[in-house]
Amino acid sequence: MPDTPSLPYSQITETLAREFAATAVERDIRGGTPKAERDALRRSGLLSLSIPTAYGGQGLNWAQVLETVRRFAQVDSSIAHVYGFHHLLLATVRLFSRPDQWEPWLEQTAHKHWFWGNALNPLDTRTVVRHREGWYEFSGKKSFCSGATDSEMLVASGLDEHSQKLLIAAIPTSRAGITLNEDWNSIGQRQTDSGSALFEKVRVEAHELLLDPGPLSTPFSSLRPLLAQLIFVHLFLGLAEGAFEQARHYTLNESRPWFRSGVEQAGQDPYTLLHYGEFFVGLESVRLLASHAAQRFDEAWSRGAALDAQQRGQVAVAIAAAKVASSRVGLEVSSRFFETTGARATHGALRLDRFWRNLRTQSLHDPVDYKLKELGGWALHGEVPAPSFYS
Amino acid sequence: MPDTPSLPYSQITETLAREFAATAVERDIRGGTPKAERDALRRSGLLSLSIPTAYGGQGLNWAQVLETVRRFAQVDSSIAHVYGFHHLLLATVRLFSRPDQWEPWLEQTAHKHWFWGNALNPLDTRTVVRHREGWYEFSGKKSFCSGATDSEMLVASGLDEHSQKLLIAAIPTSRAGITLNEDWNSIGQRQTDSGSALFEKVRVEAHELLLDPGPLSTPFSSLRPLLAQLIFVHLFLGLAEGAFEQARHYTLNESRPWFRSGVEQAGQDPYTLLHYGEFFVGLESVRLLASHAAQRFDEAWSRGAALDAQQRGQVAVAIAAAKVASSRVGLEVSSRFFETTGARATHGALRLDRFWRNLRTQSLHDPVDYKLKELGGWALHGEVPAPSFYS
Amino acid sequence: MPDTPSLPYSQITETLAREFAATAVERDIRGGTPKAERDALRRSGLLSLSIPTAYGGQGLNWAQVLETVRRFAQVDSSIAHVYGFHHLLLATVRLFSRPDQWEPWLEQTAHKHWFWGNALNPLDTRTVVRHREGWYEFSGKKSFCSGATDSEMLVASGLDEHSQKLLIAAIPTSRAGITLNEDWNSIGQRQTDSGSALFEKVRVEAHELLLDPGPLSTPFSSLRPLLAQLIFVHLFLGLAEGAFEQARHYTLNESRPWFRSGVEQAGQDPYTLLHYGEFFVGLESVRLLASHAAQRFDEAWSRGAALDAQQRGQVAVAIAAAKVASSRVGLEVSSRFFETTGARATHGALRLDRFWRNLRTQSLHDPVDYKLKELGGWALHGEVPAPSFYS
Amino acid sequence: MPDTPSLPYSQITETLAREFAATAVERDIRGGTPKAERDALRRSGLLSLSIPTAYGGQGLNWAQVLETVRRFAQVDSSIAHVYGFHHLLLATVRLFSRPDQWEPWLEQTAHKHWFWGNALNPLDTRTVVRHREGWYEFSGKKSFCSGATDSEMLVASGLDEHSQKLLIAAIPTSRAGITLNEDWNSIGQRQTDSGSALFEKVRVEAHELLLDPGPLSTPFSSLRPLLAQLIFVHLFLGLAEGAFEQARHYTLNESRPWFRSGVEQAGQDPYTLLHYGEFFVGLESVRLLASHAAQRFDEAWSRGAALDAQQRGQVAVAIAAAKVASSRVGLEVSSRFFETTGARATHGALRLDRFWRNLRTQSLHDPVDYKLKELGGWALHGEVPAPSFYS
Repeated sequence: MPDTPSLPYSQITETLAREFAATAVERDIRGGTPKAERDALRRSGLLSLSIPTAYGGQGLNWAQVLETVRRFAQVDSSIAHVYGFHHLLLATVRLFSRPDQWEPWLEQTAHKHWFWGNALNPLDTRTVVRHREGWYEFSGKKSFCSGATDSEMLVASGLDEHSQKLLIAAIPTSRAGITLNEDWNSIGQRQTDSGSALFEKVRVEAHELLLDPGPLSTPFSSLRPLLAQLIFVHLFLGLAEGAFEQARHYTLNESRPWFRSGVEQAGQDPYTLLHYGEFFVGLESVRLLASHAAQRFDEAWSRGAALDAQQRGQVAVAIAAAKVASSRVGLEVSSRFFETTGARATHGALRLDRFWRNLRTQSLHDPVDYKLKELGGWALHGEVPAPSFYS
Repeated sequence: MPDTPSLPYSQITETLAREFAATAVERDIRGGTPKAERDALRRSGLLSLSIPTAYGGQGLNWAQVLETVRRFAQVDSSIAHVYGFHHLLLATVRLFSRPDQWEPWLEQTAHKHWFWGNALNPLDTRTVVRHREGWYEFSGKKSFCSGATDSEMLVASGLDEHSQKLLIAAIPTSRAGITLNEDWNSIGQRQTDSGSALFEKVRVEAHELLLDPGPLSTPFSSLRPLLAQLIFVHLFLGLAEGAFEQARHYTLNESRPWFRSGVEQAGQDPYTLLHYGEFFVGLESVRLLASHAAQRFDEAWSRGAALDAQQRGQVAVAIAAAKVASSRVGLEVSSRFFETTGARATHGALRLDRFWRNLRTQSLHDPVDYKLKELGGWALHGEVPAPSFYS
Repeated sequence: MPDTPSLPYSQITETLAREFAATAVERDIRGGTPKAERDALRRSGLLSLSIPTAYGGQGLNWAQVLETVRRFAQVDSSIAHVYGFHHLLLATVRLFSRPDQWEPWLEQTAHKHWFWGNALNPLDTRTVVRHREGWYEFSGKKSFCSGATDSEMLVASGLDEHSQKLLIAAIPTSRAGITLNEDWNSIGQRQTDSGSALFEKVRVEAHELLLDPGPLSTPFSSLRPLLAQLIFVHLFLGLAEGAFEQARHYTLNESRPWFRSGVEQAGQDPYTLLHYGEFFVGLESVRLLASHAAQRFDEAWSRGAALDAQQRGQVAVAIAAAKVASSRVGLEVSSRFFETTGARATHGALRLDRFWRNLRTQSLHDPVDYKLKELGGWALHGEVPAPSFYS
Repeated sequence: MPDTPSLPYSQITETLAREFAATAVERDIRGGTPKAERDALRRSGLLSLSIPTAYGGQGLNWAQVLETVRRFAQVDSSIAHVYGFHHLLLATVRLFSRPDQWEPWLEQTAHKHWFWGNALNPLDTRTVVRHREGWYEFSGKKSFCSGATDSEMLVASGLDEHSQKLLIAAIPTSRAGITLNEDWNSIGQRQTDSGSALFEKVRVEAHELLLDPGPLSTPFSSLRPLLAQLIFVHLFLGLAEGAFEQARHYTLNESRPWFRSGVEQAGQDPYTLLHYGEFFVGLESVRLLASHAAQRFDEAWSRGAALDAQQRGQVAVAIAAAKVASSRVGLEVSSRFFETTGARATHGALRLDRFWRNLRTQSLHDPVDYKLKELGGWALHGEVPAPSFYS
């Protein structure tokens, strides 16, 4: 069914982004699974962008993949999220498992246009892993399983019943015993399917466990949470840019000058220009921080097993700075832009509040306060952040 | 049908506020007219709070009436808006028309528990007033007619076909030719019915026109827009307090401490305490600014026709300062409180985004930039704001 | 030598403030002790404003006394500081010692126009108190002794050699063994003489120790640090108002419009007006917070020994909110006002940086972060701040 | 007298920076001309860094030269200013005059280690240029002549007596009729000698006038004000970094933990870490904005006469964004860092207020509000800033 992509990926991304934009408002109302859009992504070939060409993928570096996440986030941050996390999960198996495990997964993903979903949530300890004879049994609940619905593969976590250690597996979403509750209902990111899952005695084979080198076991494998954070950076940046672009269009085409402004057009109001100037400075800062962090990440990634803790830590710092700035600038722009459009831009049919709702929701993944604390540790003591699934 | 209020008004307000709170989320989803709640307000006697006892009302001063607006805004800012504007419209007829006009209106309102609605929008110039023999004919459209639906009386404006002067009338909502389009659909203030109205050759009698002293004709009559602004102040303050209270409840009862915080309870996190400290300083400032402004307004009101332009201007300054601060603090608290609750508070069933949506929508009534410009004129040059329907 | 004040205190304050203003720049350069100004304060009678009339004073309430502190801070925050602390030290002996101790001190202060100085610093533990037969011996160093130079009386602290408990005494500054090092040299508050003191076997009589009820021993005696904080609030507010007034004068009389502003006068620039509008909102908030806190303090003071911990705590909250806001608004106004004056206002002869320098210095007395943490504890948990010499 | 530089320029810069740092506090007190430091710069060879090798210079690109400005600004922003402006003035003659004019000037500068000073101030219109037979006569006053004292060459401006057009000349500072009033006395940038000059019938030869292509006559020649702005960006960034570094050293080595912080060392305080995290995010943003802008400037510079207005405008945008951010972050860091050091860091001997004073003074060169307005014009309308001596 999917066509071999004959167009450059950036052009495909652009075409899809425009399609997604056309229905974004309606789908924000509806929530649920963006099935048609997910299938369009499957057909587009973009799901293999991060897969090396040796395994049938397109071999882009992460900076390039993240640009596609950002572009989608400008128009639909739910799709951008599950799309970005698909690539994150492909990176996860590469970082946490042996080549003889992840190579076939990547090949099949490229060949069969699989979409990967997330059921890895280290802070949710309700899923227990029991040791059986030669296999493992996952049982329990899991929250925030973004993109699990309509996925072919799932990265799932549980706690070892004996050691309480986090175990992570890559398994087909259709495996018996897995129930994805379509219960995601949030004020934002409404089509990310970030609902709960139930594992009922799910059989997981030994070769499906990501044990070697295992999660966060080396500086290189610890790049996984940094990639997750970097995806958030590009989500927030894209969202802020999307809000800015909508505001700009409205100010130029719909807004009326304030009756005491003395100007003919809303876009000439000195205070409106001031707001746009401030939006620009904020966005430009975030663009540079994001781009800088992505470059650092690619350099670290290319070092592979040679990456040391200090090098990994410096990438963590670059990404954390971009995370803080993108979160703050995004929230600011997506709330304040209304002051440049006027009251009529609150019309429900436009749903221009969705940028703030999406940013507000997604930016709570992990607290910005603790990112700042880690950055303080770096700035003051030269200590890099201790790796975790959030740093 | 309405009972004579036997309980103190503050107790009635409290009871109603709790009732409104119970259904606020559901009604935020639904939008439309809060018919049951409007009828409860009719029965409660609160619609006559601002009416002097001489005319059958309860004779509260404005500071007291505004406290009830604020209390309702803590739980439901749509109801608070139309309720506050009902009192604004009663003030409007007192300020703009002759006693022989407004006295019967107030008496009937107190007696029959009328609800007044707004169709006065000076920036919307589409309604034209034609002079007929002994009467006037209003024709055209009008936007942002908050609380017009389900009202008994309407304050409506149009432009004199000859002089282009603003003419304002008080007429029964049921008057032939008036169509209230139930087309309000906004991201916030969803039950204010702030949709459009259509006037088709609506007959308005001479004695229904508010010509003596007429709108903004004297310092005293120019208190009308200041009361509108003061209602916004109390709306914003109430909204911010409502957001704060919801956040507080969630932090104390639902939030989990961050895994690297080193504290046992979310409410002990040093950064969470910092946020609440900052919320408190902001809210406390606004409470004092609002209360100060309301006192000044009551003093000015009690001066009546003796009020001079400078005195009126100083009230305008006090209200403008409260408006700027309440708008900013409200937006800040209602967006940032999520950082003290964590991601799960974005659950759609809670609709905790409604405080920001309501504030964002209502705070666009008129630009805060121009309020600041006026305050700058006062601070720098000692010039009071030039009266308008927004200052 | 001092005359009986025949003019109202507010008029005397105003006259002195104008005199102090005339030499404030020169004295900011010079540093050291403002001897002439201190003597003028002695002659003015203002040093007895807070002393009850029963003891020969003028019996003002604290809100009134604090207004004089604020007025002086507008023109010279060094003098305002030592003047405010003089009254604080009079309050200290009233709160910490028996009436038979403090009554004569107050009488003599009123009669002889004494100036009290500070050598109480609970965080500086270098001064040791040894028990002798019937008397006590203070030995050691002490930093931040504001206003000790040129004072008649000193409130001094040391740690009991056995119990490590804080002991506080009121003694003549001329007592043998006391050396005041004139070593205060700071970027701001340059005439507060907040240098170090050396106690060499200083004999302190038992009746000079403030032991009954002793420091912070009751809710009422714990009002002492709150009065100190309230003095800071009025210092910061006065400083911010002084900066504002200088800026305003410069903008109106000296500033040139920016060549691309399109306005004829600097004071018409839309961005300049915006800045002044924001200054005004900030200052007005602080004025109300300060006034509210002072009223609360006076109410608590008037309760005397009947004051309970919760009542005291609520005053602490009101003062802490005012402290945070006055510190922040003050720093903002005193740094940002230059954007309304232009580059020429940095001329050294004007020393317009002194407002920021004074605020920056004084606002570091105790950290605003911990004030916010305490306010967070109140806002979130309803816990009042635990009394200390800083809360 | 000057030695041929045998060390790499970055090492020379570093050595000089450390020397300047050692005396910066003392010279901040003293003001006046940093004669020894200017001579050290002459000897160092750094004054020829921006001169192409063809003319005896070292041929660095602007990004490299600006890095040296930033390094000096970390320790002494007065020296950084006059040093940066020396290079700006060399660029000025290259951009405004014919090669047969500027080539000898550059050669002599490289050979004789000339220091260039500024007497170009387009907003000061008091200097008049009269046409004589074959020569020109400059007469009048000029303010803000940074680095004119102790310079060998001066770039001076005046208004043509007939056309009121701005005329600019490069002349020896020793030319008869030039008086440099050593009257610079400011709250900051105290050793920039930015005082006034007096031109009394100063004879300027035709070949000393920069007429071809003349000031701001082409997109390429209009790079001059952008280089000035870019020097400010690097001044502000260096100042902010210098403040940060001083704060960090103090926090780590001198500060005491707050008695209620529960930590052993000031550097472990959660709020202190938060402040440093925020400083880092701000500084990192500015570093990237500055670096990006410098690269853009070098690209534009290398285009030479081929540079078009749109390309020039985009460089202006990049620099303006960096200017706004560096000014704001710099003011924030240099004022707020005291909250991480505590009160004792206000000690006069440290003069840690100098970073804020220097930033505050220099950042008033032209209003940040109008930079934001221009950026708003770009962001909203895609209009590049209209070239002027400030944009």
